[in-house]
Amino acid sequence: MGFLSSRVFKWICWLSVVAAFFLIGFLIGWFARPTQSARSDGPSHAVLQEFLDEMQAENIRQHLRKFTRLPHLAGTEQNLRLAERIRDEWLRYGLDSAEIVHYDVLLSYPNETKPNYISVVDDAGNEVFNSSLSEPVPEGYEDVPNIVPPYSAFSAKGQPEGDMVYVNYGRTEDFFLLQRDMGVNCSGKIVIARYGKIFRGNKVKNAILAGAKGIILFSDPADYCAPGVRPYPDGWNLPGGGAQRGNVLNLNGAGDPLTPGYPAKEYTYRYRTDEGAGLPSIPVHPIGYNDAAVLLRNMGGQIPPNNWKGDLNVSYRIGPGFADGLANRKVRMNIHTINRVTRIYNVIGKIRGAVEPDRYIILGGHRDAWVFGGIDPSTGAAVVHETVRSAGTLVGRGWRPRRTIIFASWDAEEFGLLGSTEWAEEHAKILQERAVAYINADSAIEGMYTLRVDCVPSLHTLVYDVTKKISSPDEDGVSLYDSWHKKDNWTDDRDAPRISKLGSGSDFEAYFIRLGIASGRARYTKNTKTEKYSSYPVYHSVYETFELVERFYDPSFRKLLAVAQVRGALVLRLADSPLLPLDCTEYADALAKYARAIAEAARKHPDELLEYRVSFDALFSAVDNFTAAATSFHERLRTLDLTNAMEVRMANDQLMYLERAFVDPLGLPGRPFYRHIIFAPSSHNKYAGESFPGIYDALFDIQNAPRPDKAWEEVKRQISIAAFTVHAAAMTLNPTA
Amino acid sequence: MGFLSSRVFKWICWLSVVAAFFLIGFLIGWFARPTQSARSDGPSHAVLQEFLDEMQAENIRQHLRKFTRLPHLAGTEQNLRLAERIRDEWLRYGLDSAEIVHYDVLLSYPNETKPNYISVVDDAGNEVFNSSLSEPVPEGYEDVPNIVPPYSAFSAKGQPEGDMVYVNYGRTEDFFLLQRDMGVNCSGKIVIARYGKIFRGNKVKNAILAGAKGIILFSDPADYCAPGVRPYPDGWNLPGGGAQRGNVLNLNGAGDPLTPGYPAKEYTYRYRTDEGAGLPSIPVHPIGYNDAAVLLRNMGGQIPPNNWKGDLNVSYRIGPGFADGLANRKVRMNIHTINRVTRIYNVIGKIRGAVEPDRYIILGGHRDAWVFGGIDPSTGAAVVHETVRSAGTLVGRGWRPRRTIIFASWDAEEFGLLGSTEWAEEHAKILQERAVAYINADSAIEGMYTLRVDCVPSLHTLVYDVTKKISSPDEDGVSLYDSWHKKDNWTDDRDAPRISKLGSGSDFEAYFIRLGIASGRARYTKNTKTEKYSSYPVYHSVYETFELVERFYDPSFRKLLAVAQVRGALVLRLADSPLLPLDCTEYADALAKYARAIAEAARKHPDELLEYRVSFDALFSAVDNFTAAATSFHERLRTLDLTNAMEVRMANDQLMYLERAFVDPLGLPGRPFYRHIIFAPSSHNKYAGESFPGIYDALFDIQNAPRPDKAWEEVKRQISIAAFTVHAAAMTLNPTA
Repeated sequence: MGFLSSRVFKWICWLSVVAAFFLIGFLIGWFARPTQSARSDGPSHAVLQEFLDEMQAENIRQHLRKFTRLPHLAGTEQNLRLAERIRDEWLRYGLDSAEIVHYDVLLSYPNETKPNYISVVDDAGNEVFNSSLSEPVPEGYEDVPNIVPPYSAFSAKGQPEGDMVYVNYGRTEDFFLLQRDMGVNCSGKIVIARYGKIFRGNKVKNAILAGAKGIILFSDPADYCAPGVRPYPDGWNLPGGGAQRGNVLNLNGAGDPLTPGYPAKEYTYRYRTDEGAGLPSIPVHPIGYNDAAVLLRNMGGQIPPNNWKGDLNVSYRIGPGFADGLANRKVRMNIHTINRVTRIYNVIGKIRGAVEPDRYIILGGHRDAWVFGGIDPSTGAAVVHETVRSAGTLVGRGWRPRRTIIFASWDAEEFGLLGSTEWAEEHAKILQERAVAYINADSAIEGMYTLRVDCVPSLHTLVYDVTKKISSPDEDGVSLYDSWHKKDNWTDDRDAPRISKLGSGSDFEAYFIRLGIASGRARYTKNTKTEKYSSYPVYHSVYETFELVERFYDPSFRKLLAVAQVRGALVLRLADSPLLPLDCTEYADALAKYARAIAEAARKHPDELLEYRVSFDALFSAVDNFTAAATSFHERLRTLDLTNAMEVRMANDQLMYLERAFVDPLGLPGRPFYRHIIFAPSSHNKYAGESFPGIYDALFDIQNAPRPDKAWEEVKRQISIAAFTVHAAAMTLNPTA
Repeated sequence: MGFLSSRVFKWICWLSVVAAFFLIGFLIGWFARPTQSARSDGPSHAVLQEFLDEMQAENIRQHLRKFTRLPHLAGTEQNLRLAERIRDEWLRYGLDSAEIVHYDVLLSYPNETKPNYISVVDDAGNEVFNSSLSEPVPEGYEDVPNIVPPYSAFSAKGQPEGDMVYVNYGRTEDFFLLQRDMGVNCSGKIVIARYGKIFRGNKVKNAILAGAKGIILFSDPADYCAPGVRPYPDGWNLPGGGAQRGNVLNLNGAGDPLTPGYPAKEYTYRYRTDEGAGLPSIPVHPIGYNDAAVLLRNMGGQIPPNNWKGDLNVSYRIGPGFADGLANRKVRMNIHTINRVTRIYNVIGKIRGAVEPDRYIILGGHRDAWVFGGIDPSTGAAVVHETVRSAGTLVGRGWRPRRTIIFASWDAEEFGLLGSTEWAEEHAKILQERAVAYINADSAIEGMYTLRVDCVPSLHTLVYDVTKKISSPDEDGVSLYDSWHKKDNWTDDRDAPRISKLGSGSDFEAYFIRLGIASGRARYTKNTKTEKYSSYPVYHSVYETFELVERFYDPSFRKLLAVAQVRGALVLRLADSPLLPLDCTEYADALAKYARAIAEAARKHPDELLEYRVSFDALFSAVDNFTAAATSFHERLRTLDLTNAMEVRMANDQLMYLERAFVDPLGLPGRPFYRHIIFAPSSHNKYAGESFPGIYDALFDIQNAPRPDKAWEEVKRQISIAAFTVHAAAMTLNPTA
């Protein structure tokens, strides 16, 4: 050190100190800098609360009021005007965009100059009885034009005449009993079935398979009147002159009958009407219980079992035909309904995502109504409207969700889910690649008792979470979760509110069952343990008015507000959480439960299981594999670096695509557009969601199989497809499988 | 400042300096820190060059030598041993993992105790001629066991006997000419077709449709001998005793015939063999030209057109049956081939991606061979092996690609692309979600002239890029691009080397045509303008040996090296470029060209286009829409923030999913596993890739339609589907469509 002056030494010391501080500064700078995705705080409590608080019962009341003044039948001028109004209001509420998207689909209307009706004709050919041509219009609506009379949309035209057979609900099992055990042949007959239990299209299909040449559908008081309740307008029961409109297609998810699989745009090839998908080949017509009583009163033939008897003051004899003395009288259907390619209009609104604009959360519900749509769909449409208003308000305050939110007002749901299905067809590719979830927004209420939720298992946890943050409309100071839990505890499965499987019958169908997008729906419902009527009594009648909701179902509009908050909170959490709030372990539990249930159902045939060597082991093993994959996936999530944008995106992709993994492009047997292997309606009832529907249907078909060996081979094939699908889904939970 | 001593002042100065340096350090640290995706420099020139330089012609020679010592027929012990060896070597070369994955599929072998052959029988039933039972084995291989004799895999069993009809190449148009213009009925006959022009399975299908009860396939010298070349071993022509093995299935992408659509695992349901997909219902057998000359020499019947005549010294009369004097003689086929469910083995090796492990680039080729596989597939397998070695070496030096690379050695390609298709079926979901591209690695050489590339349009630009970085094996100091450009200029389209459409016939089929993964293949080929023989002469014969390649096709192994470098560079660039090197505007140009071509083809029927109101306007308009979307997508890419991980991932997702958008889950008519609407083989020749195959086939079918109105309706339907698909693909290029 001798040659260094102390001055130089001092300088070196100072330089070292400066360099050290530079280094410390550098290191602090290096590590303090946030890496890309530090925007991972997600929807704070505050944002969710602000969004929920912004929604108001009174606003929902006003939306419902304006949506229900006039009929909004699909394909009419009035429904286009409503679409334009909704688009304009959504834009005013603050959405980034809102536009009308049209399709040209096959619709069906009564002939305006030749009314549809049912007659009884005597042996001279005189019509001694004719069913009513319309429903008595409720007070205050007498001067409203364009109320479509009750009819079965897409009925074949024709005037078949013949003996009538009563077929109870027209279910597969009803026809089995009738034809096998009671020896009644429906071939060439006009059958009469009561509404209820299953989708009306399935009744029509069963009638066609049985050889009937026409089918009359009626609302029996047993199924459409609650005890102790008065008919509308003094109560919410169906009056005797009311009847249920509805389409009678068997589309199985095809959308527009003339363009199955493709959007009904200008350039799209259309089949001829006689080649269309799902169109019934026989006339169909709905009547109320006053008219039904007249038709049924004089029936001859056998006395049916007690569970075939409704609440009319008649014997419910089966026929064929009328009793002695009137045996020459025939029933004649006069059906002149016209199918016509007609333009329909969806409204599509969007809030662009701030971080992942290419990820979509969809809230969709229909706008078209049979008449006023007091409940169906306008309670749903009013709720969507208020959700849009609240979200738009937040956007106005500078907020923006992480992902894109799409709001949809679908058209022509009543004609076979046409608006939603055509839009899904047009956007299938980007939906498959980008859609995180679809929340459905049909009727928000069908009873006054408690919440009802149907959704995929991966949404269970989120549904429980959000309902804990929402107030119960039933009791002050109690959460919706708690009041729901008290009223409908899922005791078989767990100590928590019951959540059901999705069936079909509303606009989520194409998104869920065809495209495999995680879906859910929520509404207020009746007490299913004590209230045994179907749906709600005035369903699809002219008596579905604003006053029905305001006087009877939800005078405070707090139930509708709660439903709006549930649907909205699901959408917000899905759109704004950095990590998607989807739970794979719930799916694993559900799959295990469904596998046990379907294997149990097969055990009704112990001899055949042995003879045909049918085993569910492969399915159980696949479920075990899935369970292990789901568990380790969620373990990995716990240690995920939420500041690493790429890692978060990869994990979210896996969560998003899990539902997609359950979809088989080959579809279920004979139903190319029902592709979900875990959930789909059975072939025997579109409304009921079955788990492992392929296996379910194959087992169902055993009952009537001409070749049991072939039928059991099909069961085995379906078990194998289910096992494969569950294995494939497990693989998607592995990041580098 | 008075109260501050100069010492304190000095300290403050020093502290300020230190703080300033701290701040500078902090700022430099802050900005120097790479944010998430700043790893966006991608595969530097250096990495690519290192990867290419690491590959050696001599290594490829040695790999080929060891892969071709023994036969490696699918389903045999020897081919399993080779799989194990490849797995072990891949691990030694440095892959992260390599494993054997098995499936149990339907294979087909000659009966070891009852040989297959063709006889001529006289009227006493004596076999006066029998075709050879095997090929003369080439020198040096005389003691090799397990050389399977020539046979048609999956032939039906049987001993049909009858008059023979010569059907030229057995194409649809050959049968049209025969049946319509020449009035020859093939029903109940044994037909004899020469190999060439189309896939042999299509010949068999046409024979079955024509009512034949058996089909003999022969190699004509016109199609399997190059002029001036001597037969093997003195040259590379097919000797007279050689014959072409091959499967005669019509799978249309189904994979294992007993498990179409699903992987042939232990748990999978299997159809009975008589229900299997694509199995021919009649006996089929291949013979060489020596035997064919005997069969054809005495044929009777009409003289065919000149273009039906091959190079044998016979008249090529059509029959049916032999000429006068020998008319009582019949041809008998003796076919005892056995179909059997057999275990096959793929080898799957992986290098895990560093940044996006959930994105896959696949390099796959088959390992199974009919006999020694000198060209098919071992030139491909040797090339893959060297690619794995080079990539593994880089991994050993600390490199890792951005995305995951998957290497595959497929089994049972020769039996209908079974190994690759079953693996695609098992992994369909994750492949659809994660696979960026599939590069095929079948035979790397089929001629000595220049490069041949078949790939999707989005890979064109990348192919040109990488071939500019690779040396030509033909000329020193010249790039592969330049020598290729000189020899095969794509003058109709542009001044650049020609790139062709993908057809089928190799393992990319399931990945490309079923799943919609961008795919490509590259090999050395002949001069197609002057060399008119089919494939290469000794294709699928025992004469495909190591020596064939070493002596004739590529003595320096530089052609194989060039092919290895092309395939490898495509994989490396796809795996390591931050932004995927896929070019949508090339796809737009190609679509426009294809649309013009198919519309032009339809204009052969001007009257019908008017009568049935057939228009291509919707297709042209969709292509315009796509072109605009592609242009604006690439403009957006130019301003993309490459340091923003999420934006890069979003853009890459769009590039990856573009190819997927061309896939229709409903499949092409009658071919549920051919789902690509832009590219698929026609129904009339599996080898030839057609653009807009749905429209192409519908137009083809016009020729023979019993109901032209229906046939033209189908053309219109297919145009509509094509237009829809192109619109949907355009939508995927919009980030928030």
